[in-house]
Amino acid sequence: MSGSTLGALFCVTNFGESHGPAIGCVVDGCPPGMALTAADIQRDLDLRKPGTSRHVTQRKEPDTVEILSGTFEGRTTGTPIALLIRNEDQRSKDYGNLAATFRPGHADYSYWRKYGVRDHRGGGRSSARLTAPTVAAGAIARKWLGEAHGVVVRGYLAQLGEIAVPFRSWEAVAEREANPFFVADLEAVPRLEAYMDALRKSGDSVGARVNVVASGVPAGWGEPVYDRLDADIAHAMMGINAVKGVEIGAGFASIAQKGSEHGDEITPGGFLSNHAGGVLGGISTGQDVVVSIALKPTSSIRLPRRSIDQAGNAVVVETHGRHDPCVGIRAAPIAEACLAIVLMDHALRHRAQCGVPAGAAPRG
Amino acid sequence: MSGSTLGALFCVTNFGESHGPAIGCVVDGCPPGMALTAADIQRDLDLRKPGTSRHVTQRKEPDTVEILSGTFEGRTTGTPIALLIRNEDQRSKDYGNLAATFRPGHADYSYWRKYGVRDHRGGGRSSARLTAPTVAAGAIARKWLGEAHGVVVRGYLAQLGEIAVPFRSWEAVAEREANPFFVADLEAVPRLEAYMDALRKSGDSVGARVNVVASGVPAGWGEPVYDRLDADIAHAMMGINAVKGVEIGAGFASIAQKGSEHGDEITPGGFLSNHAGGVLGGISTGQDVVVSIALKPTSSIRLPRRSIDQAGNAVVVETHGRHDPCVGIRAAPIAEACLAIVLMDHALRHRAQCGVPAGAAPRG
Amino acid sequence: MSGSTLGALFCVTNFGESHGPAIGCVVDGCPPGMALTAADIQRDLDLRKPGTSRHVTQRKEPDTVEILSGTFEGRTTGTPIALLIRNEDQRSKDYGNLAATFRPGHADYSYWRKYGVRDHRGGGRSSARLTAPTVAAGAIARKWLGEAHGVVVRGYLAQLGEIAVPFRSWEAVAEREANPFFVADLEAVPRLEAYMDALRKSGDSVGARVNVVASGVPAGWGEPVYDRLDADIAHAMMGINAVKGVEIGAGFASIAQKGSEHGDEITPGGFLSNHAGGVLGGISTGQDVVVSIALKPTSSIRLPRRSIDQAGNAVVVETHGRHDPCVGIRAAPIAEACLAIVLMDHALRHRAQCGVPAGAAPRG
Amino acid sequence: MSGSTLGALFCVTNFGESHGPAIGCVVDGCPPGMALTAADIQRDLDLRKPGTSRHVTQRKEPDTVEILSGTFEGRTTGTPIALLIRNEDQRSKDYGNLAATFRPGHADYSYWRKYGVRDHRGGGRSSARLTAPTVAAGAIARKWLGEAHGVVVRGYLAQLGEIAVPFRSWEAVAEREANPFFVADLEAVPRLEAYMDALRKSGDSVGARVNVVASGVPAGWGEPVYDRLDADIAHAMMGINAVKGVEIGAGFASIAQKGSEHGDEITPGGFLSNHAGGVLGGISTGQDVVVSIALKPTSSIRLPRRSIDQAGNAVVVETHGRHDPCVGIRAAPIAEACLAIVLMDHALRHRAQCGVPAGAAPRG
Repeated sequence: MSGSTLGALFCVTNFGESHGPAIGCVVDGCPPGMALTAADIQRDLDLRKPGTSRHVTQRKEPDTVEILSGTFEGRTTGTPIALLIRNEDQRSKDYGNLAATFRPGHADYSYWRKYGVRDHRGGGRSSARLTAPTVAAGAIARKWLGEAHGVVVRGYLAQLGEIAVPFRSWEAVAEREANPFFVADLEAVPRLEAYMDALRKSGDSVGARVNVVASGVPAGWGEPVYDRLDADIAHAMMGINAVKGVEIGAGFASIAQKGSEHGDEITPGGFLSNHAGGVLGGISTGQDVVVSIALKPTSSIRLPRRSIDQAGNAVVVETHGRHDPCVGIRAAPIAEACLAIVLMDHALRHRAQCGVPAGAAPRG
Repeated sequence: MSGSTLGALFCVTNFGESHGPAIGCVVDGCPPGMALTAADIQRDLDLRKPGTSRHVTQRKEPDTVEILSGTFEGRTTGTPIALLIRNEDQRSKDYGNLAATFRPGHADYSYWRKYGVRDHRGGGRSSARLTAPTVAAGAIARKWLGEAHGVVVRGYLAQLGEIAVPFRSWEAVAEREANPFFVADLEAVPRLEAYMDALRKSGDSVGARVNVVASGVPAGWGEPVYDRLDADIAHAMMGINAVKGVEIGAGFASIAQKGSEHGDEITPGGFLSNHAGGVLGGISTGQDVVVSIALKPTSSIRLPRRSIDQAGNAVVVETHGRHDPCVGIRAAPIAEACLAIVLMDHALRHRAQCGVPAGAAPRG
Repeated sequence: MSGSTLGALFCVTNFGESHGPAIGCVVDGCPPGMALTAADIQRDLDLRKPGTSRHVTQRKEPDTVEILSGTFEGRTTGTPIALLIRNEDQRSKDYGNLAATFRPGHADYSYWRKYGVRDHRGGGRSSARLTAPTVAAGAIARKWLGEAHGVVVRGYLAQLGEIAVPFRSWEAVAEREANPFFVADLEAVPRLEAYMDALRKSGDSVGARVNVVASGVPAGWGEPVYDRLDADIAHAMMGINAVKGVEIGAGFASIAQKGSEHGDEITPGGFLSNHAGGVLGGISTGQDVVVSIALKPTSSIRLPRRSIDQAGNAVVVETHGRHDPCVGIRAAPIAEACLAIVLMDHALRHRAQCGVPAGAAPRG
Repeated sequence: MSGSTLGALFCVTNFGESHGPAIGCVVDGCPPGMALTAADIQRDLDLRKPGTSRHVTQRKEPDTVEILSGTFEGRTTGTPIALLIRNEDQRSKDYGNLAATFRPGHADYSYWRKYGVRDHRGGGRSSARLTAPTVAAGAIARKWLGEAHGVVVRGYLAQLGEIAVPFRSWEAVAEREANPFFVADLEAVPRLEAYMDALRKSGDSVGARVNVVASGVPAGWGEPVYDRLDADIAHAMMGINAVKGVEIGAGFASIAQKGSEHGDEITPGGFLSNHAGGVLGGISTGQDVVVSIALKPTSSIRLPRRSIDQAGNAVVVETHGRHDPCVGIRAAPIAEACLAIVLMDHALRHRAQCGVPAGAAPRG
């Protein structure tokens, strides 16, 4: 019941701080016999890593992953897979002046109230850096989902501040060189670059929306009450740093919908719409699982903000470290990882209880 | 790791089907010595129960709760509290014609794909009736939170279909006779009644938004990674039937916010705003915990809908049972219960690890 | 993480007190589609129930089980199965004089120190009566293990006080009329009857050894570290009231064994011995799983014993309620249930991770 | 629900193989603010490490632990503590000839049947080497138990093959130079040395008994049903490699005891005996918690043994790697660690539910 563990059967236990020796995770419950090397994981980590464009933090972290256990001769053995990422560019001095003050909108304050001790180096445990182990574990889940079930998990940045970027194609998202934003429409890139340049100059930050879609999910994954598939997705997504909202399918738009509009009709050829986002009654329907998340603007900004120090005195805080002006830009790989982990977990849970290969023809 | 259990230390294990002999739950982990009688729980159940106005399902269920264990001489003993609610008005015949067809937007289909068997009586396990045990367990959590920490958890209907009803006062919500909608502004009631009457006549249904607020939550409850307070709230809320979206604090509005707007400034007198919704870095800040959820329109409607039967043939479905045309109307007590359960769970988790009474002055 | 739940995937959540309204459990995680009626469960409960011979407690409890949920038309649906047993013969007055004193060897004292409240009626939650829900849940596990894997779980009383009764045949154990002791040799019965009659007359009690054997367990169930099959068996067995020791296979005899004697040799025809008790490295080998447990003598005896009351004053305690002079006599069905629950749990865990039908031919 | 995690609130997740890059664990749930350095942990690891006398395996492993996270400026922060131990002396070539055969009494066979893949280097995951992370985590638990509650956990070798060595003093056990056996009587050492020399020469191995005692445990730790303190101790102990039996207090001796002998009488001055081993009804009584375990003889011996290879052919196996002829000799620190982990876990669980400092005067 470790609070730092995600998943019930495919279990990811996360550890580390942004400025400690290392971060990483232990992945327990992975089926044996799957081909797996560090390169399989590194690919996803490289998508998330900092310093890849001028629009994200300039911290230089190679984020090189080492597999410490759980594989033998290039295949999983069924035993825990420990993944290690050393911290290299730590520069704690950047943060020295923050040791005794709280940054507005930052977890400084709540951590200090909880633990009574404070690792003031960068975000410590609350740093977005701690999503790297999640991404690493997600790479394993994604590989298994693809090989065992043909499931594909993909995400994209759907809105950056006021600028919504509607989905055009997955090919656009994959253009990593031409598209530092993970948007699904390359034509939006110049406008976003200008927006980000102005934002960076202003010393401010902004929020974002990221959408994630899992295709090929068989019907039948999930549970009816409490640990529903959508509930576990919401848990994982809201567990990502800066996320303030989660939607499945039509999400908040379903408030104003009529039942005759929202309920997805079915024909012998399949569903006619997907307002449900691929989940009914907590259980997958076989349609795409569609998730959307809201990320708040980064709390560490250069603009002066009122706050207090640990003694309770009024102070003004300006943050000059290396921060993402929009954490949402690098969030698509993280959201994909979370969705993959939850789906794999429920694939195993379903197989445990119902036994038949998920996705097989319905019984009886 | 039962999928039907909510909470890690304050554990609610839910059982039952809408048309079986009984529904209920086992609540494990409640501290000993708290005064508790069935009347304490019945009060909350009565708020949720069907048949209280013409705007909700006409199923007549007294929803009388019996405490089977865990109390002695009117106090909790620290052992599991089993709560039993007999089903009385079952009328399975209403559903006979649905035995072999799937209702669009309903869990029929996904259950059948998962389990290969089907309890076609009403919603079976997917019925909103299964929120009653959650409400009952929530009543215990709410009582403990109030007595041990002065926490108050309250919810209201903030939007019904297209009609948003802004918060005016908690007193309005409490007017149960004059206010069958749990809205926070009595003046909105006539308009809502007219809206619902027309909706019912049309045979259609509609979605809703419910807001829940916990006041008095001490700083320090929650965990940094994965089992964050907001993540567990999202899990519980998305686990409620019909919920398609969850927001904490500014929620989806934070996408377009600047960091200089979103980050709540702090002064020696306290926070100046609450865009965070009372949670930073997964841990409570001492501000109100503010949650908003979107509920989809009921899937069971009288209007004809295209669907298939179990054999895969095209059919037209019209549902004539006794259904809520807007499940959101009775959802406020359910959302309150979920928030109370998660908060109590994290209160105990915090006490386990950090030992000091939560809410005590920060150490060191 | 409810402390009252046994099993990770096949989860049994136990509730109740000996003198409250009811006892029971919720069984979550059972595969769908298995035929199951109350009669299937009642059979095992009747083996454990009190009052069946003069050698056990004369409390009259029909222990009639009601299935509240989780089945439909005589088959499991995959949703939680709630089982209810009403307490009927409660006679709390028998215990009135114990309300403020502690019985030596009894959980009175530790409960009171833990919870600060005390349900002095009978054993309350510490009563052996709370093994009835375990037996009921075990009946479901046993049925599934038999149908899905051909596993048979059987136990017998191997020693009563000083009298060891070596195994002769399972047929002897099954002779319920002629054999009130669950021993595996009918010829021992008269000697045991005389022994028990003398013991009862003396007002004292005595311990016992119970052996349990699961046949037909496929190789491959279990985990390597921590949640080993043998570790989980030890947990379940030591969790039975009055159990003070657990052995797997050669158990304590292996201390003095040489490796050349203990290590079970293998031939193309199979293993040549079973000192391992069917478990190597925490994982089943395909041999019989063999478990032995030690049960202490009942603490409630008529003989005068020194103790204290709640105020700390010295008192003399004599217990005159209706107690088993040897709890081990009725323990075989309980130990069988525990073994069945653990085996089924690991069968599901194995299927989750490794996917192939357990017991299938080894891959690779 | 990772099978490789021990503890519900103080959670130890173990990873690694004997011949992979590293072993280690993640310890989640440790209270913040406790002084902790690698040296605190190294002390216990050094007690368990191989190569310290001629009576144990000659594998040379410094077993140097690195703290990767969870501490800051020498104190725990409340976040996960990751511990890393690199494997250095791996010599896989020693095992090359075992790649395709099964060693009698060894987990080779059951692992292969479970996973269908096989890490034939040494024991892989089943190696006793994997107890090192448990010992490391136990050092943290032991330190917290001592500082927060004055609990002391100590173990000793009580029997080596046929030679029982009764307890004389804890001082004897602490004489690490003069006492390579962890026995509690230095006078027994010469006899044990001669015994072990002869055993080694014979190429055989032998079993052992280890006793562990926790002093200073307050009354009130544990749960009534299933997750009892004794049940969780049994789980942890039976989870140690080679353990085949676990006793609490009088253990198997209680079979032949009368109730008038076994039940520990209480006087205003305290208990008069401790047959219960410090646990009644699953909850600690305030007496010493007393545990005894049986360890089987090492399966890897030089003597020829009949077995089969992966193809099912009959083979003769002689094992010539570097193995402990009696794994029990180094087991005392491991058993201590397991007991410490379980006690700390229940200390936190108790504090979560009952809130008062464990060990405080009973309420009410």
